[in-house]
Amino acid sequence: MYPAETIKQLVSLSREEEHLVDGLFESRQMAKDQNLLSYGQVCHLVGLVEKGCLRYFMLKDGEEITYSFAQAGDFVSNYESFLNRAPSNKIIKSVEDTKIWLLHREHLDRIYREVKAGNRFGRLVIEKVFVETLRQLSSYYTDSPTERYLKFNTEYPELVQRIPQYLIASYVGVKP
Amino acid sequence: MYPAETIKQLVSLSREEEHLVDGLFESRQMAKDQNLLSYGQVCHLVGLVEKGCLRYFMLKDGEEITYSFAQAGDFVSNYESFLNRAPSNKIIKSVEDTKIWLLHREHLDRIYREVKAGNRFGRLVIEKVFVETLRQLSSYYTDSPTERYLKFNTEYPELVQRIPQYLIASYVGVKP
Repeated sequence: MYPAETIKQLVSLSREEEHLVDGLFESRQMAKDQNLLSYGQVCHLVGLVEKGCLRYFMLKDGEEITYSFAQAGDFVSNYESFLNRAPSNKIIKSVEDTKIWLLHREHLDRIYREVKAGNRFGRLVIEKVFVETLRQLSSYYTDSPTERYLKFNTEYPELVQRIPQYLIASYVGVKP
Repeated sequence: MYPAETIKQLVSLSREEEHLVDGLFESRQMAKDQNLLSYGQVCHLVGLVEKGCLRYFMLKDGEEITYSFAQAGDFVSNYESFLNRAPSNKIIKSVEDTKIWLLHREHLDRIYREVKAGNRFGRLVIEKVFVETLRQLSSYYTDSPTERYLKFNTEYPELVQRIPQYLIASYVGVKP
């Protein structure tokens, strides 16, 4: 899969724009347990997951609070850090072998400038990430562990088989 | 003030586009304590405050938790409800006499379609609102009442004089 294929599900691209966009992303193969974004680092990229899984977590009293996962087809970023150029208080880490397409800040700006539907693409992606982030954070603060366990099973049915139990526990909010 | 003036601080508009945009917003004069968005209502609009003040709050065990304020020049919306067409669990209410310009969903879509920099405008506004929402929600969950009191004084220096003490207490997170 190349990024333009996924982007074309959101906005239309000419053949030239497809080539441009595919050239602006670079692919990275991540082993399990590698950080895409570390604590305190400024986030300068938006990722598009091709295969594998990443998780978002925060640290609270030294404990990892997993609040979201990203799977194939998902866009990944900490926009709060990205937009403010502020050190991230969230960590994004691979849960298993993961292939991801990365778009650096300056390349995203090129898409905004040079692709006709670039700003529309940017708006639609940030809308998705915004809503998902708010939904996941609200759920973390307001839902009970049981509700979160049920939601996890509904939202990530394939992950249940693939990822370690302690990560599910960290998402649900109970000790394993 | 007309909306196009504020929008031109974010993107450039032709004279025709300015007229179009100003015609798509409608102004509303709100008395104190009126809801712009009620609990359970789907949010179909984005507002731009010209004068006055609104507050955002959630209900928790029947209590009002004020997590943000909007002042002159701020864009106001519950994007989570707007984008998902989902009932709002947040309430937006005037704190004092307020003049606001309202843009309904279908008119925002017209701006996306008919204004050259429409999507760029939409992207920049959602970026501002996204970052501000995350910042305010994170602060609510992680900062102490003292930190929140200090932040309130720094971020809203003029409001301290204008709004009732119990609203500041509701924002800070202490009983008045």
